[in-house]
Amino acid sequence: MLDKIDMKKEVRKQDYDDRMAHLEIRMGELQRQCKEKKIPIMIVFEGFEASGKGTLINKMIQPLDPRGFKVYTMEKETEADTMHPYFWRYFTKTPAKGRIHIFDRSWYQGIEKGIITAEEVRQFERQFTDDGMVVIKFFLAITQKEQKKRMDNLKKNASTKWRVNEEDYRKNKDYDKYLKKYDDMLIQTDTSNAPWTVVEAIEKKYAICKILTTVVNRLEAAVSAQKKVSGNAGSVTEEDSEDLQNGVLQGIDLSLTLEPEEYKKKRKDLQKRMEILHNKMYLQRVPVILAFEGWDAGGKGGAIKRITQCIDPRGYEVVPIASPNDIEKAHHYLWRFWEKFPKDGHMAIFDRTWYGRVLVERVEGFATEEEWKRAYSEINNMEAHLVKSGAVVLKFWMHIDKEEQEKRFKQRQETPEKQWKITDEDWRNREKWEEYEKAIDEMVVRTSTGDAPWHIIEANSKLYARIKVLEIVVEALEKVLK
Amino acid sequence: MLDKIDMKKEVRKQDYDDRMAHLEIRMGELQRQCKEKKIPIMIVFEGFEASGKGTLINKMIQPLDPRGFKVYTMEKETEADTMHPYFWRYFTKTPAKGRIHIFDRSWYQGIEKGIITAEEVRQFERQFTDDGMVVIKFFLAITQKEQKKRMDNLKKNASTKWRVNEEDYRKNKDYDKYLKKYDDMLIQTDTSNAPWTVVEAIEKKYAICKILTTVVNRLEAAVSAQKKVSGNAGSVTEEDSEDLQNGVLQGIDLSLTLEPEEYKKKRKDLQKRMEILHNKMYLQRVPVILAFEGWDAGGKGGAIKRITQCIDPRGYEVVPIASPNDIEKAHHYLWRFWEKFPKDGHMAIFDRTWYGRVLVERVEGFATEEEWKRAYSEINNMEAHLVKSGAVVLKFWMHIDKEEQEKRFKQRQETPEKQWKITDEDWRNREKWEEYEKAIDEMVVRTSTGDAPWHIIEANSKLYARIKVLEIVVEALEKVLK
Repeated sequence: MLDKIDMKKEVRKQDYDDRMAHLEIRMGELQRQCKEKKIPIMIVFEGFEASGKGTLINKMIQPLDPRGFKVYTMEKETEADTMHPYFWRYFTKTPAKGRIHIFDRSWYQGIEKGIITAEEVRQFERQFTDDGMVVIKFFLAITQKEQKKRMDNLKKNASTKWRVNEEDYRKNKDYDKYLKKYDDMLIQTDTSNAPWTVVEAIEKKYAICKILTTVVNRLEAAVSAQKKVSGNAGSVTEEDSEDLQNGVLQGIDLSLTLEPEEYKKKRKDLQKRMEILHNKMYLQRVPVILAFEGWDAGGKGGAIKRITQCIDPRGYEVVPIASPNDIEKAHHYLWRFWEKFPKDGHMAIFDRTWYGRVLVERVEGFATEEEWKRAYSEINNMEAHLVKSGAVVLKFWMHIDKEEQEKRFKQRQETPEKQWKITDEDWRNREKWEEYEKAIDEMVVRTSTGDAPWHIIEANSKLYARIKVLEIVVEALEKVLK
Repeated sequence: MLDKIDMKKEVRKQDYDDRMAHLEIRMGELQRQCKEKKIPIMIVFEGFEASGKGTLINKMIQPLDPRGFKVYTMEKETEADTMHPYFWRYFTKTPAKGRIHIFDRSWYQGIEKGIITAEEVRQFERQFTDDGMVVIKFFLAITQKEQKKRMDNLKKNASTKWRVNEEDYRKNKDYDKYLKKYDDMLIQTDTSNAPWTVVEAIEKKYAICKILTTVVNRLEAAVSAQKKVSGNAGSVTEEDSEDLQNGVLQGIDLSLTLEPEEYKKKRKDLQKRMEILHNKMYLQRVPVILAFEGWDAGGKGGAIKRITQCIDPRGYEVVPIASPNDIEKAHHYLWRFWEKFPKDGHMAIFDRTWYGRVLVERVEGFATEEEWKRAYSEINNMEAHLVKSGAVVLKFWMHIDKEEQEKRFKQRQETPEKQWKITDEDWRNREKWEEYEKAIDEMVVRTSTGDAPWHIIEANSKLYARIKVLEIVVEALEKVLK
């Protein structure tokens, strides 16, 4: 994409003034329309060193209402960034519906550094465009000679010389090599849902016109597309539409129990090991994610407590997941979980998880069929990324049968200090037992990956369940930590 | 407070079990009541090294619903922390209404290190307790001998030896010196609104009972206090109640103008200097805060644009302030501004500010009289802290008269691409011109401090106003930056 272009393209002064006046007004209008229609917009700037990203971004934002956009400079990683999975610093900064987020440098740095693959980037962008986001990507191109000239100019000036270093000059010498490398990267990530626009950036006026024109065209398309259809069916693959046979939960032996004495002994031993592991986790900087799902009153809370009782509160956080708040609702459904993923050496214990998308949101109709079907692979990709980045991910389904649930609900109602735990909603959910069963079965089949398999916990016996969870956690960590 | 206590206090096993059972249930109940009554709670743990903060915090949180609390470990500063004013890392972590935030180490580290004074800490805590927050502070005390024993134990164990270092042993030798130092600190910051509880922490069971008992008592007091009164009158000082004479805005000469040619020349020169200053700001790591207030249609946006046009978007952010969202409303009113204060070397330009408290919130009755009267000194303290931490703080009031406003409102209504800028609310605000005038006068008088004086901008002429703002910014920065 880079080898055939003329980087010296220019625009005539008179044309420029007319076009800019028109484009700036149009940008303002489209920003307001996108806000109204709740379309999130992400604009990415990549390009050669000294190609003028800063100046051009500043030109681009002048016509925008500052209440609706934000510029992120992503060059240098913060300490928190380095202690999280690679995509974390980007995912947590994606725009809410109706907002424009502009990235000066982006996840493409990860391809350059060999941390992520083009395929992972395509998946990353795809989850947002599938969700209705407009992703606009610019690559600013200048010639080797122009780059050298600009770097020399920056160096000459006392107030800007810090912007250029030896590395930049070395890269300038190897210009052809980098051109080839960038070209490969662009070709591999130029998708129909998130295409690249190469901007010839020697002449600033030409460049800004092309940038604004591209943004205006993409936003116009997005605004009018939303007028025509809402709820595009999308492509459902064959695998997706195949009807699953109930099964996973059928084979579970809920009669398993544990004697109190045996329980006490095992718990003591496992908690002792857990305490040691928690210290090692911290020292060896391994992040741990425990994901708890299960039937209402399945014993999630009790199992979590047996893990946290013995460890230092400075190294773990229990993250209870309820229905999303307004800000969370305005983002991609995975955003609020990314916000909570632990940094290296820490543990996050999720009491309910991102699987709500394919459980309660599916059953209650909060997500469309297209949305929850898409979620399986989105979740698998996310978990693969977490594991690849060094995290231990363990997922538990706390399984009880319908009779046991009724017993526990009634117990809660009869115990004064537990009454707050049981609501009408719990009884209503119970009426949809069979629908949930189907959703759980499909979830376990589709998202039990090698990276992050599901552990079904036979939980009719609380004592048995707690020990089994502790055992799985302790053994998994002992395998990883020296 | 530390020299007279018996650190070896114990509790009998039977007493312990009974009391704990009762306290744990009570904690759960009170957490739910505080949530219902929207009482925010902040619990601080300070104390000797190896006094068991981690273990005791973990014990304390076991009876709590994880949806309602969070533990912050504040020992090590992050990169972002070091690049903000000292209180930033704490203020941004204060709890929303109904939540419990627990700090393992706190702003008291700043007193130890000589960064902040006891008086500043008293002011810091006072603003929250005035706002209805419960602030509970624990200091865990152990003897010199016990501390030595615990450090030796930690050192012996392979998985915990990283927790002790030479510094800790040195401090243990100097135990008496530190005891005296801590004692002074406690005495100076033991206020009626945020008192200290010293916890004898050699025996863990005694300690946890005392901690839970204290928390339960404080929360019970808070819950029942809220039942009795709502809207306690509070202490209004003499200075506060004195009636101010209108005046500040009367002396403003709104006939000042500037010829277009003169404007262009000056703007060009000032923007050039601004560009250089922005680079220096970044290099010398000076944070800059520009606060814009003014009449509707006073020209805030235009003035801001003339500053941002010429600088790198990676180094500044325009922060538009509208009415607070739900999450912001659930916090102290200054919280959302703390969230946005720039890190060192960056510039934040606020389009409307924290002065909303004493302007729109006062006039519209969104804040009680007690609240907005208290705000003057809270704001002065905050700005003093910003300036002390190295920030440049410049505040502008964009001043126009009533006729000019009407002219501009009408212009907006008649220009298609500006119509969105004018709403019914703008016309409604206009009807309260005299009330606003009074509020503005008082604001300027009470918050024009040596650290951060107000600049009243004669803004009937847009050209004149823009240049004056640019001049003030450029000259202030040139004074600070070499």
